[in-house]
Amino acid sequence: MAKKNAKMVDAITSMDEDFAKWYTDICTKAELIAYTSVKGCMVIRPYGYAIWENIQKNLDERFKALGHENVCMPMFIPESLLQKEKDHVEGFAPEVAWVTHGGSEKLEDRLCVRPTSETLFCEHYANIVHSYRDLPKLYNQWVSVVRWEKTTRPFLRSREFLWQEGHTIHETAQEAIDETERMLDCYADFCQRDLAIPVVKGRKTDSDKFAGAEATYAIEALMHDGKALQAGTSHYFGDGFAKAFNIQFTGRDNKLAYPHQTSWGVTTRLIGAIIMTHGDDNGLVLPPAVAPIQAVIVPVQQFKEGVLDKAKELYDTLKAAGIRVKLDDSEQSPGWKFAEYEMKGVPVRIEIGPKDIENDQCVIVTRHNREKTFTGISQLTETVQKKLEEVRDGIYAKALENRENKTYRCVTMEEITAALNEKGDGFVKAMWCGDEACEDKVKEITGVGSRCIPFEQENLSDVCVCCGKPAKKMVLWGKAY
Amino acid sequence: MAKKNAKMVDAITSMDEDFAKWYTDICTKAELIAYTSVKGCMVIRPYGYAIWENIQKNLDERFKALGHENVCMPMFIPESLLQKEKDHVEGFAPEVAWVTHGGSEKLEDRLCVRPTSETLFCEHYANIVHSYRDLPKLYNQWVSVVRWEKTTRPFLRSREFLWQEGHTIHETAQEAIDETERMLDCYADFCQRDLAIPVVKGRKTDSDKFAGAEATYAIEALMHDGKALQAGTSHYFGDGFAKAFNIQFTGRDNKLAYPHQTSWGVTTRLIGAIIMTHGDDNGLVLPPAVAPIQAVIVPVQQFKEGVLDKAKELYDTLKAAGIRVKLDDSEQSPGWKFAEYEMKGVPVRIEIGPKDIENDQCVIVTRHNREKTFTGISQLTETVQKKLEEVRDGIYAKALENRENKTYRCVTMEEITAALNEKGDGFVKAMWCGDEACEDKVKEITGVGSRCIPFEQENLSDVCVCCGKPAKKMVLWGKAY
Repeated sequence: MAKKNAKMVDAITSMDEDFAKWYTDICTKAELIAYTSVKGCMVIRPYGYAIWENIQKNLDERFKALGHENVCMPMFIPESLLQKEKDHVEGFAPEVAWVTHGGSEKLEDRLCVRPTSETLFCEHYANIVHSYRDLPKLYNQWVSVVRWEKTTRPFLRSREFLWQEGHTIHETAQEAIDETERMLDCYADFCQRDLAIPVVKGRKTDSDKFAGAEATYAIEALMHDGKALQAGTSHYFGDGFAKAFNIQFTGRDNKLAYPHQTSWGVTTRLIGAIIMTHGDDNGLVLPPAVAPIQAVIVPVQQFKEGVLDKAKELYDTLKAAGIRVKLDDSEQSPGWKFAEYEMKGVPVRIEIGPKDIENDQCVIVTRHNREKTFTGISQLTETVQKKLEEVRDGIYAKALENRENKTYRCVTMEEITAALNEKGDGFVKAMWCGDEACEDKVKEITGVGSRCIPFEQENLSDVCVCCGKPAKKMVLWGKAY
Repeated sequence: MAKKNAKMVDAITSMDEDFAKWYTDICTKAELIAYTSVKGCMVIRPYGYAIWENIQKNLDERFKALGHENVCMPMFIPESLLQKEKDHVEGFAPEVAWVTHGGSEKLEDRLCVRPTSETLFCEHYANIVHSYRDLPKLYNQWVSVVRWEKTTRPFLRSREFLWQEGHTIHETAQEAIDETERMLDCYADFCQRDLAIPVVKGRKTDSDKFAGAEATYAIEALMHDGKALQAGTSHYFGDGFAKAFNIQFTGRDNKLAYPHQTSWGVTTRLIGAIIMTHGDDNGLVLPPAVAPIQAVIVPVQQFKEGVLDKAKELYDTLKAAGIRVKLDDSEQSPGWKFAEYEMKGVPVRIEIGPKDIENDQCVIVTRHNREKTFTGISQLTETVQKKLEEVRDGIYAKALENRENKTYRCVTMEEITAALNEKGDGFVKAMWCGDEACEDKVKEITGVGSRCIPFEQENLSDVCVCCGKPAKKMVLWGKAY
């Protein structure tokens, strides 16, 4: 018996009906991922991986332009090495995968699969950093890491995920602090300009710091459903790791000193952020900068003479202009193809049929708003380039509007509860005294936790939203993915 | 007390004195790798990783031009999945790392860290391949894998190594066989043209096949010391894995059929091959196509007026022409810099001093033969481009000569022993009856094992070098890394 041909465009669950189901529908139906028998892990399929390759290429160029170099550390960390920094091991040990046997031999010192690589970088720095002349080292690696999560979701939380981890080491504290901020800016610029995702830059409260860090900075984005997503983090370590790992260098004054360190990372979670920021009930909507296919050409009545030739001509023109273009001349109907590439979030669709050819024009449809325009074939390249910019600007504006509509400025606990009840999940801005007890209480009572202390402060009130004591900072609160 | 500045150009062990020591000296002194406390694993340092990035970029473009797409599979394989193909599990189970605990929880089905990913690709293919329309799938991934080796050496044999693994699935056996050969050709062309390493293409004998393969093909290179190195492999699986994993598709005749598969890979071992093919007693010699720095500019008397300005001008010219160029204007002496960049194998050195500027010229030295020429500054770009080609051709010719000098055509066992004794390790070409017992005996008596059955056959004799029975094939024998 012949099996059913699995390749077809099914409808997906609507986002209003069930946002979580809508999300996983997109992940599978846009062919970004597939499930496997490896619990909590996934296959990143060609279309999903191509998005990651574009993210990687863009960020890698940014990192290198700032002087960073790529390296590759082992994927294993001996338990004894992981234990050198007290806070770090406490933070990570409960959620790592342990290798206990190599072949049939039981290991004396078991190895964890790296959840992050501070300890390995520190060990290496201790070996290669001797003088101030050896500083700074601005290293990065593109690898996968493992954290033994209980509940997993594609891209957002999986036991193995892909990321980059930057690890830098500097002569002075100020240089390291500058690096921490520079990389947060780099992430923010990438998210806003290239992924079209508006983000809030800020500092994490102490309760939410990275294990072993002096300060953790993050960019926070608001998803379509009003939940917050941490899209990137940058950590300042001071000289804590240097002391734990005995990294010392001879300074300009000929005295031994401890260097200062940072680390920073973004992950495949960014793909989850793209889906939940821009997607709609027809599927994915991709920002042009990272879309594997920026424009798809769909021939109409392709069996009529000249249609496929003309379509191929458009393809060649756009390809030569450096646009990532695909011509779909398969036997499926144009309607099927429209739905398929909407599902896959291709920013621009180009339709060309006999009538268009007669008029020396073609049809251009932008994915995010389904706006249809005609363009003369001689202006095709500029029109497509303009449309790609329009898509980027359009989806950014829409995401920003969503965030603004779902950002609630509150001065009392009651206001927080009321805003969330009336308008649904979103960002809450409210003042905070700096006391961890109040942070916990806000979460307990209203359900929103501290996301960050935004760099861009607003003075909403003089007192803490929770205890009424003098406020120190405005905090951004939200329910987090 | 100030620590000693570790950064200096030390002499390395000469290759004639101790080839193995010479090799590891280059690995560490050219700053390709560093050792870590993770036994059998290494840090790939920026200079080493940049070589890998260039290898990766070059091959990835070749793969994509042939229609391959990148994906990413989980790094873990459940024991139950690994066991589905009998030969495969027998081949790999003894040398894998086992994850037995996630956090504090003991796993029911322990996971191995992938030694290779056939089983995961098969599971995925079983889920996504339903019709002949879904075929072929031409997938590849760039990841690291783990094999629990007892004795390790940087790049050549380490417990974790970086590689790419292509996994393809086809409608017919012939298509899969063609793919196996196409990818072997792709590797051979890359090695010869871009890495300047001559290779022999051939088929592995049955005793040396990949676990689970019907046929394994390989490219074999000869290192400077006369030992053989397998530089890449390509496997034809027939429908064995498809049957084990129950991958079936509806064919054009509307009947269910099993597809045919391949896999193929190259690893960071290629960096070891580069070192041992081209290196000399002054250090590394890099093929221009993958050299992180293709040309280094060393200013002479750089504190004299105009020297650094002119050097910067040369730098800008070469950079604009797309050459990977570095200007070293550090305070070290020119002599120190010459030695440093020879150690790092930079193909072309450019010297520019006050006298050169007066004569509107500069000095160009090619790394592999230390040949010095003058060039007018206005011809700089073309001269450097020509010199880079000369380096590629020069090191290829030298490697080929080494291989020819060390390839011994033998018709008796005594001839093999005599040739190896007189001329040292090398490739032996000798006839074989096809019997595994003879293969084993040749190795036992002469020390050389079967490397491959070259596609390019020579008829050296009508009888097996070992048993005297009719010969079937000429085999390439050697001592392998």
